[in-house]
Amino acid sequence: MTISTNSQPKDIVLTGDRTTGKLHLGHYVGSLKNRVQLQQQYETYIMLADVQALTTHFHTPEMLAGSVRQVALDYLSVGIDPDQATLFVQSMIPEIAELTVFYSMFVSVSSLRHNPTIKSEAAERGYEDLYYGFLGYPVSQAADITFCKATLVPAGDDQIPHIEQARKIVRRFNELYAPVLVEPQIIVGERLDGLDGSSKMSKSLGNAISLDSTTDEVRSRIRKAPTDPARVHKTDPGHPEVCTIYGYHRIFRPEDSGNIHDMCTRGTLGCAACKAKITGAIEEVLEPIRERRARYEQRPGDIDDILMAGTTKAREAARQTMGEVREAMGINYFARR
Amino acid sequence: MTISTNSQPKDIVLTGDRTTGKLHLGHYVGSLKNRVQLQQQYETYIMLADVQALTTHFHTPEMLAGSVRQVALDYLSVGIDPDQATLFVQSMIPEIAELTVFYSMFVSVSSLRHNPTIKSEAAERGYEDLYYGFLGYPVSQAADITFCKATLVPAGDDQIPHIEQARKIVRRFNELYAPVLVEPQIIVGERLDGLDGSSKMSKSLGNAISLDSTTDEVRSRIRKAPTDPARVHKTDPGHPEVCTIYGYHRIFRPEDSGNIHDMCTRGTLGCAACKAKITGAIEEVLEPIRERRARYEQRPGDIDDILMAGTTKAREAARQTMGEVREAMGINYFARR
Repeated sequence: MTISTNSQPKDIVLTGDRTTGKLHLGHYVGSLKNRVQLQQQYETYIMLADVQALTTHFHTPEMLAGSVRQVALDYLSVGIDPDQATLFVQSMIPEIAELTVFYSMFVSVSSLRHNPTIKSEAAERGYEDLYYGFLGYPVSQAADITFCKATLVPAGDDQIPHIEQARKIVRRFNELYAPVLVEPQIIVGERLDGLDGSSKMSKSLGNAISLDSTTDEVRSRIRKAPTDPARVHKTDPGHPEVCTIYGYHRIFRPEDSGNIHDMCTRGTLGCAACKAKITGAIEEVLEPIRERRARYEQRPGDIDDILMAGTTKAREAARQTMGEVREAMGINYFARR
Repeated sequence: MTISTNSQPKDIVLTGDRTTGKLHLGHYVGSLKNRVQLQQQYETYIMLADVQALTTHFHTPEMLAGSVRQVALDYLSVGIDPDQATLFVQSMIPEIAELTVFYSMFVSVSSLRHNPTIKSEAAERGYEDLYYGFLGYPVSQAADITFCKATLVPAGDDQIPHIEQARKIVRRFNELYAPVLVEPQIIVGERLDGLDGSSKMSKSLGNAISLDSTTDEVRSRIRKAPTDPARVHKTDPGHPEVCTIYGYHRIFRPEDSGNIHDMCTRGTLGCAACKAKITGAIEEVLEPIRERRARYEQRPGDIDDILMAGTTKAREAARQTMGEVREAMGINYFARR
């Protein structure tokens, strides 16, 4: 991650995750570890995106209450500090829904239909027909980002089209009404491949290492991960560029990855030994996460307290922005009475 | 208007108008006079639909503040009684935006694209590309109707597809979550043709008699209205079925319309005399409206007081429904703390 050096102290970070289940190492690499760093420098809002979860899970909302707390626990476990970052629940900020409705007036249906992430997600889910809320995901996301006037959004590269749409919405709003909104910038995180090596790590593809994995689970999942299929014997020369595990070395053990590459291609390091090294590195990441998780699990009420306090704080920012939005649009009819 | 005789006392009326300018006789015939009657029997909510106005007027929101008060004055002038009916401003009920977002998750884009009123309005406005909010008008309207659990919606026949969509949304919500929403029924009002006789009376087509017209304006506009083009001399037999003025007789002087039909077809009643009769009948409608308007115009602060009190009351209903909606969806995470 490179954070622009000309960022002003007034930068505000907004990020979050859909509350559709546990977070995994892909989230950690792609965004969570950036957030832990960013929270020390910037005002940081972290959203439990339960309304966005409904775009694909509207038929199973009963899983949301569990997921909201599960994702919050994941956040706290990776080192998000509730004294530094504001954790809040999306569905409890009505101003986000109001902004979504206002922005929807001037966003064209075709610009949403042509959004590449919407297209690929719809294809991935096999949607023949889109739901209206699913199509409007980028509008809702613009509302998420702008309600607190966020300037920095740490996210995966699949979010680039959405952030571009959010920037367009900000420019259009400011041009139509008054310059009250702020254009966000994305901070693109690293991409972690799934254990099957075929695509990005994703819970729904079953190729993920969740952040609450035990040592045995990590070891077992890494052991079963495919490596270079052309390599039958330990002494066969390997092709690290096609090996998921080598990708993990580059991310989790970058200082030693040149060495691993050499040993693999020369056939002096077998896959089992190579996997043992990466298991150790992942364990170094997960161990402090497990420790924090264990502490929070002993005080389950704390999570609700943290979410309620964060939501109250986020709501204040939302009210402030909504007041400015209404004034800009001239719909604060009774403001002066 | 025929109000179903098996309506229960618990029936609730929701209706309203987009705040895009003055109301006219078409609104009066199609809906306003029904509302004046309904308010005496049922709990009645009347919405100043400023958010729906934005679907077509997002680029000129500055006209909304004036239009909101103008439409409110029209309502009071026709006899809407603020002690009987709740007048409120749509943009001040955030729960409507929240319900819109929730419903949007399970409404398909194609069902909205195939909504005949959306299609014809888009064609009428010459939209090549739709805006997302415009496409979602029926979803937003379902939120308007359901936030107060309205059962009766007095509206024009162009609203039939929207009410059907609202009924579908209610059924789907109740099936997905819990039976907390109520299916509305439309009460279709009479349709009044515009003065040009070519289509429905509509401000945007310039063929309307606004409710604040003076006697001279009414007389002048009726005098210029085309009648039966085949009738050159007063004694020529007329064809009332193609004459806009005859249509007005059927609506404003139904008791005498058979007689008018006879005299016209026999060539014993000239157009000028026929127009004088209808001008008189319209004046009988407008005169008490003018008197009430004059009284309210002397106390401009009253309108803001009425809107604020009504909005506060509507907001209470909205909060109540939203609590039930959140419980049904299982997203009232901290309700029991």
